[in-house]
Amino acid sequence: MARRLRLGMVGGGQGAFIGAVHRIAARLDDRYELVAGALSADAGRARESAAALHIAPDRAYADFETMADHEAAREDGIDVVAIVTPNHLHAAPVRAFAERGIHVICDKPLTHSLEDALALEPLVRQSGIVFGLTHNYTGYPMVRQAREMVEAGEIGAIRVVQVEYAQGWLATPLEETGQKQAAWRTDPARSGAGGSVGDIGTHAFNLAEFVSGLACESLAAELTSFVPGRRLDDDARMLLRFAGGARGMLWSSQVALGHENGLRLRVYGERGSLAWAQEEPEGLVHAPLGEAPRLLRRGGPAASPAAGHASRIPGGHPEGYLEAFAQLYRDLAEQITARLEHRAPDPAALRVPGLAEGLRGMRFIAAAVESSQRNAAWVPLLG
Amino acid sequence: MARRLRLGMVGGGQGAFIGAVHRIAARLDDRYELVAGALSADAGRARESAAALHIAPDRAYADFETMADHEAAREDGIDVVAIVTPNHLHAAPVRAFAERGIHVICDKPLTHSLEDALALEPLVRQSGIVFGLTHNYTGYPMVRQAREMVEAGEIGAIRVVQVEYAQGWLATPLEETGQKQAAWRTDPARSGAGGSVGDIGTHAFNLAEFVSGLACESLAAELTSFVPGRRLDDDARMLLRFAGGARGMLWSSQVALGHENGLRLRVYGERGSLAWAQEEPEGLVHAPLGEAPRLLRRGGPAASPAAGHASRIPGGHPEGYLEAFAQLYRDLAEQITARLEHRAPDPAALRVPGLAEGLRGMRFIAAAVESSQRNAAWVPLLG
Amino acid sequence: MARRLRLGMVGGGQGAFIGAVHRIAARLDDRYELVAGALSADAGRARESAAALHIAPDRAYADFETMADHEAAREDGIDVVAIVTPNHLHAAPVRAFAERGIHVICDKPLTHSLEDALALEPLVRQSGIVFGLTHNYTGYPMVRQAREMVEAGEIGAIRVVQVEYAQGWLATPLEETGQKQAAWRTDPARSGAGGSVGDIGTHAFNLAEFVSGLACESLAAELTSFVPGRRLDDDARMLLRFAGGARGMLWSSQVALGHENGLRLRVYGERGSLAWAQEEPEGLVHAPLGEAPRLLRRGGPAASPAAGHASRIPGGHPEGYLEAFAQLYRDLAEQITARLEHRAPDPAALRVPGLAEGLRGMRFIAAAVESSQRNAAWVPLLG
Amino acid sequence: MARRLRLGMVGGGQGAFIGAVHRIAARLDDRYELVAGALSADAGRARESAAALHIAPDRAYADFETMADHEAAREDGIDVVAIVTPNHLHAAPVRAFAERGIHVICDKPLTHSLEDALALEPLVRQSGIVFGLTHNYTGYPMVRQAREMVEAGEIGAIRVVQVEYAQGWLATPLEETGQKQAAWRTDPARSGAGGSVGDIGTHAFNLAEFVSGLACESLAAELTSFVPGRRLDDDARMLLRFAGGARGMLWSSQVALGHENGLRLRVYGERGSLAWAQEEPEGLVHAPLGEAPRLLRRGGPAASPAAGHASRIPGGHPEGYLEAFAQLYRDLAEQITARLEHRAPDPAALRVPGLAEGLRGMRFIAAAVESSQRNAAWVPLLG
Repeated sequence: MARRLRLGMVGGGQGAFIGAVHRIAARLDDRYELVAGALSADAGRARESAAALHIAPDRAYADFETMADHEAAREDGIDVVAIVTPNHLHAAPVRAFAERGIHVICDKPLTHSLEDALALEPLVRQSGIVFGLTHNYTGYPMVRQAREMVEAGEIGAIRVVQVEYAQGWLATPLEETGQKQAAWRTDPARSGAGGSVGDIGTHAFNLAEFVSGLACESLAAELTSFVPGRRLDDDARMLLRFAGGARGMLWSSQVALGHENGLRLRVYGERGSLAWAQEEPEGLVHAPLGEAPRLLRRGGPAASPAAGHASRIPGGHPEGYLEAFAQLYRDLAEQITARLEHRAPDPAALRVPGLAEGLRGMRFIAAAVESSQRNAAWVPLLG
Repeated sequence: MARRLRLGMVGGGQGAFIGAVHRIAARLDDRYELVAGALSADAGRARESAAALHIAPDRAYADFETMADHEAAREDGIDVVAIVTPNHLHAAPVRAFAERGIHVICDKPLTHSLEDALALEPLVRQSGIVFGLTHNYTGYPMVRQAREMVEAGEIGAIRVVQVEYAQGWLATPLEETGQKQAAWRTDPARSGAGGSVGDIGTHAFNLAEFVSGLACESLAAELTSFVPGRRLDDDARMLLRFAGGARGMLWSSQVALGHENGLRLRVYGERGSLAWAQEEPEGLVHAPLGEAPRLLRRGGPAASPAAGHASRIPGGHPEGYLEAFAQLYRDLAEQITARLEHRAPDPAALRVPGLAEGLRGMRFIAAAVESSQRNAAWVPLLG
Repeated sequence: MARRLRLGMVGGGQGAFIGAVHRIAARLDDRYELVAGALSADAGRARESAAALHIAPDRAYADFETMADHEAAREDGIDVVAIVTPNHLHAAPVRAFAERGIHVICDKPLTHSLEDALALEPLVRQSGIVFGLTHNYTGYPMVRQAREMVEAGEIGAIRVVQVEYAQGWLATPLEETGQKQAAWRTDPARSGAGGSVGDIGTHAFNLAEFVSGLACESLAAELTSFVPGRRLDDDARMLLRFAGGARGMLWSSQVALGHENGLRLRVYGERGSLAWAQEEPEGLVHAPLGEAPRLLRRGGPAASPAAGHASRIPGGHPEGYLEAFAQLYRDLAEQITARLEHRAPDPAALRVPGLAEGLRGMRFIAAAVESSQRNAAWVPLLG
Repeated sequence: MARRLRLGMVGGGQGAFIGAVHRIAARLDDRYELVAGALSADAGRARESAAALHIAPDRAYADFETMADHEAAREDGIDVVAIVTPNHLHAAPVRAFAERGIHVICDKPLTHSLEDALALEPLVRQSGIVFGLTHNYTGYPMVRQAREMVEAGEIGAIRVVQVEYAQGWLATPLEETGQKQAAWRTDPARSGAGGSVGDIGTHAFNLAEFVSGLACESLAAELTSFVPGRRLDDDARMLLRFAGGARGMLWSSQVALGHENGLRLRVYGERGSLAWAQEEPEGLVHAPLGEAPRLLRRGGPAASPAAGHASRIPGGHPEGYLEAFAQLYRDLAEQITARLEHRAPDPAALRVPGLAEGLRGMRFIAAAVESSQRNAAWVPLLG
């Protein structure tokens, strides 16, 4: 049995949402142990957070550079680091750990701006590390199955891709109340040029490309800030053109009252369609041409190998967001362990989004913002 | 008790879908009796169809002009005519009956082209007749309630309107098989410049304006013909801008496998949202800001007067498409009867789309086609 | 084209729910014209109701005996009568019209007591008339399809039948407010020995036998009156044993808050299952052994001939309660017309419940009441 | 920060379903570390399983008696043991660890027979240990909220409780194929007297009592083995009588094709109802008398403190079966830690089923079996 991988974390101190999620995800399948961290820019908070997480005091670092240096020097240094800071603080630690050959798991979006991403990319590529970007929705079993079915041609050539990611939690000026999550997400200095488009639109975009297997070639977008005083978009709507002639639409919103985390994808091909919704993730509706729609379910009679790979327990015992997130960690553990063991990884574990998807996401944000500034003109997504 | 209104019909001979629907709708609430018809351009078929409908032989006409003349001359001539021909054959009979003061119920879209509509409109307006356009989805009780709730400010100022109308029946070149419904709908000579956009997009557009109470000011559209050889769009996607700053999207498709008649509207305001779907029409989801979503149901504890007005039987006993269609007939019967009785109609019966909505629909089609030809440029919907 | 059948009605004066439903059902497919009625025991109300329904004054009768006499004597007398009175007033008019050879459509349950039913049955049988009992839920297309699929062996031998009919409208003592529907349904003198069991349990029981094709051999029931002062059960729960070894449960309730008209059937066989719910009647879930569940829909790719027979408009255009009710009228029109035309009726039109089902229902009520009085002992349903 | 509790495990070697679930549940919230185990009766398998779980070789025991002895003797011995063996192997290890003052988390049902349970109960009670029984469905946030709402009187006095637990995986004689899960569950020697009734019926029964807060006083049951040759029931149906006059039904089935893990509870009171389904666990439908039904959701605007206590991540990010299971572990960690720290535990952490619920479950199985043998006679559930 392979040993547990030694994991470090940058960001994710007490009170952070996504840091806690990464930790549960890392723990769930018992392939990691958290042994080091630079959990907060506030030294006291960093120390307290580390203690609460059973991290030894000498591996509770005040900053990520020190952490990278020390861990790289230790015999039992970390194998991999999770970077869970706000968007503007991704690039520097990625660089620091990549340069030292430490594998990286980075929260999305890749960076704060497309320029940063373009600068980072060759460096990371040359480092040869395993790099995972947590577009966590790709870890859902039925999303994996959808991709597999599309690849196998089960719905024929794709014509239309409809994707939306609707939330309602920013329908009021929550950032003015001091709510931390709202504050950084609506602040261009920390979030980047995209508001809803960067925070959740990137997930929707990634999901559409992941499942359809098609590259989006251009988009025509309109971004709006409905809440007075808000500096970033809280709602974005756009038309999409995919390679090969498929067409689509994308909607991201954080003012859509009634939605909590409404990511939803529908893909229509010449011979059938697939529909999936994140809030009911265990099902996948497959409507083949000329036949009654089927409700495919994780663990059910029509679950595919890809769904099985991303599954832990029998059908009807709901897996959810944390398990999907954990799937990325599990697959990355396999990739990293395979490196350590000088063997080829399980091919099924290679589905995790990485650098390329990170760059696509940054191009998406930049294009959406540019298109909106140009009155919804078509903007290409080259690269 | 008011007498039944005498109804004539133009089009709708044997085998026609929408003609049969109009007849059931007229019959359902027992406010009409069908007594005359020019049911088909084929004289034999017209005669046979009339006999099957218990229309007296002397009122089974070979053409609508003769029918208009004769019925206008009879003491017991028709009060109202239903025009259920393909789109290119709406304008002439509307004109003929309007000129003779016979009330008109016309299937949508109003005419074959915007030019025709602009020419027809003043004439009908001056005739003073009751003119109903069967945007039948506005007859659903919970659509009426949604409109009433928006008007009452229950969801606050509207920010986003999302509407879609997805069907899958034209995913293959059905028109090449001789299927009659597919043949005329995909033929520009009979349908006009819009394919899916004219056939079903107009319904979606009408529904969005009907419920939101907002005028769409401009749109940016892309229309596509996915099925090789098809001359009209079978899929259209567009961005919408509404008066007052609301934004939205509209999707119409007839190649969306898995959908039968998927008309679906979602309206998001500052204080809540409403969601309705035609295939489950008895419910309306209302999500108020800061409260749990409620499932409002026709006949249920939170049904409004407007829903009650458009309802026949208790909640839980599903009403459907035919009842919604019949609601337009019932409301128009009230409007016409009020004229006959020289009294004001029940205000609740005035919700039926008419000339103005017909013109809006024609502007919508023209704008969508133009925008698509101009690479999804914004095109205004003046008028 | 066959002429419309001449229809009379007993009961159903202004304010009655089920009378209005019968009239819409009769009208919907244009196979009947209502020409005579004894609509109310109150002479004035009978007269006014008739006028409102466009019934000629000389055919607006004060009582059903006179009506039966006069109509039987007329050249253009009614072909068929609909009996829509409260339960205790079914037997006498059935007898009166049957004796005169006038076909009968009777609301359920058949009579006020099993004794009445046993007395009525041979008389009606010998009269040779067409006799339809409006267990209207059997008119739904997907119920017809479910029956057809079971008959065809598509789910194999049946093991378990679960049926429930849950309503909430009698959760409070509504009958004390003078509400007419509640008043007679909770009054043993008018309803019979069963409360919820007679009013809606009979529908559930009929549906279970109709779809499964299995006779229920015995039951063990507990009937409860939850609302203080109520004399009839408002909630009944029971175990069922079917011929051939299948087992099941039945629940009827009128105090189940949150339900409007929640009739729901699930049938489990050795090779698959079927599930149907009245409030979403257009779908039927079919789960075959070892395959993903399919959502069969009226008018969809997997709709059967039986569903098509009971359908009017394309899939996705919801049909509902009134259309299902109308299906019984349409099928009975075919049966009666075939008699008039001395030909065999369309076999698909023979699915309408009649005398035999009426007797089954009365045995069911009697057995449930007896079982409950005997502490849920098993009581056979012979006959 | 409290240290992680040291956890041992009895049973749950490689290939076991429920052992793996317990381990994930223990890990998820990082309150335990697995340090010892007697994982299999097969010594080799026990050793290999332990190694795979990173258990030190000297704490991988060949049998639970040795484990209890050695661990009780160690300074760093386990705080708590999880017992995840088949039913017939629960009582002996519970006794062994309880006698040594080691806390116990035991899978359900409590024991193999009611006699065993009655013998075990006083011993465990006197030991003073924390004893948790993993009726894991009580760990779901919305189940906790349902209980809290009932306690607060939000639906008034309860009238009807409907609970079912439907699965289809034993619709064929799977046990004859050597499938391990099926084999022991259908074997009276290992499962006890109940088949579906013991395996899943106990969960349904526990859930009904947990949420309603009512004790079931008696039941009338029929148990059936539909699959030829099966020795235990694979389907059970029963009527329930609760203290205070509430009534209900319970159905458990493992031959209900189309269901995966269909545990579903509905509770109807005088002022409202609640409905919850395990396969969509994030929602709870609340239908108050005279108001529209609300969809309460974990993390949504109407989520209660009890739901919040059992929740980790924001609404719309689905939590599922593993998180609910983990909630029991988390609450038990709080109970045990409070003991270690000589303080009172968080009251919210006291909701975990324990000995009393274990006994109730055994009484339930015994009563159901006896009632069925006596032709569905009423059997009391004393104690």
